[in-house]
Amino acid sequence: MADTHALATLVQALKGLPGVGIKSAQRMAFQLLQNDRATARQLAAALQNAVEKIQHCECCHTFTEAELCDTCLDLTRDRTLLCVIETPADQSAIERTGTYRGLYFVLMGKLSPLDGIGPHDIGLAKLKKRVADGVLTEVILATNFTAEGEATAHVISEMIRQQGLKVTRLARGVPAGSELEYVDLGTIAHALVDRR
Amino acid sequence: MADTHALATLVQALKGLPGVGIKSAQRMAFQLLQNDRATARQLAAALQNAVEKIQHCECCHTFTEAELCDTCLDLTRDRTLLCVIETPADQSAIERTGTYRGLYFVLMGKLSPLDGIGPHDIGLAKLKKRVADGVLTEVILATNFTAEGEATAHVISEMIRQQGLKVTRLARGVPAGSELEYVDLGTIAHALVDRR
Ligand SMILES: [Zn+2]
Ligand SMILES: [Zn+2]
Repeated sequence: MADTHALATLVQALKGLPGVGIKSAQRMAFQLLQNDRATARQLAAALQNAVEKIQHCECCHTFTEAELCDTCLDLTRDRTLLCVIETPADQSAIERTGTYRGLYFVLMGKLSPLDGIGPHDIGLAKLKKRVADGVLTEVILATNFTAEGEATAHVISEMIRQQGLKVTRLARGVPAGSELEYVDLGTIAHALVDRR
Repeated sequence: MADTHALATLVQALKGLPGVGIKSAQRMAFQLLQNDRATARQLAAALQNAVEKIQHCECCHTFTEAELCDTCLDLTRDRTLLCVIETPADQSAIERTGTYRGLYFVLMGKLSPLDGIGPHDIGLAKLKKRVADGVLTEVILATNFTAEGEATAHVISEMIRQQGLKVTRLARGVPAGSELEYVDLGTIAHALVDRR
């Protein structure tokens, strides 16, 4: 598209977004510059702001703008239960069932040796420290029922059992091979009740 | 995803990109913040820079960082020919054939009444002034062979004929290297009508 350096740079940067190829990037750049410069400005500001402000909760590892996230600060929650999930979206899914009132630990990923994602990248050292708070009695593993999610649950389970805590896994009410964020709420609620 | 305002704002802004739904926007935000903050920063800077610097060429309407684009400034080009196309990508396609040495006018869109895109949005007033430079002798309409592209070509053709200039359209025909039996009938019919 056209012979401008600023445009070529923008297309390259858009191509850096997950799932965006060169054709989509060109289409996005054209659309933004031709018809929607307000959106371009908003996106630039939102990116800058998010990168500056968003950090990880010191307690549960999820995204937050403060030291601790709102969930970890909520004193009405049951501090004897900790539910381990892969992403903030999974936490939202569980929250929407309205059946869980404990705390969370968000791995922000899953073990994936092929992609070079190891224990350190999903905060397992932080989790090990977290579960040793003396208040927790049960850790519920709610990673996805995919091959990588199961492997991640297995590794965490071994680690936590060594520390003498009860470890449970969401019941297999959740269809195998599916991702939590796309599962209907009733299924997730039943799987929580039937956890083993 | 998580309970942060900066994150919600970023997801909304990403959703403003063409072809990006809420799920993709969430995935992009997660990926950028969790694994790729350098890309987030680069994209923010590229957007800001592009919005500030990129304007329309005063002569041919395409994107440029100067008053006139490189093509319009190229004194070796044939100033008696003007090729009208929809987008900078179409111009690139024609340039790559190496068979055209005239100038261009880039509509940066096409007439599309259903989307509220009228003559003003594709710079027809600018084009009308452009073709009255006294040097041009022929205008080649190379809008796409879609319903909207054809309608756009028709409107421009009427406008330019009133100014006493020769107006031509890219020939419709059988693609080079193809076998007749595999070419759709509409294309063959047009190739027969446009035979030379
Ligand atoms: Zn937290
Ligand atoms: Zn130009």
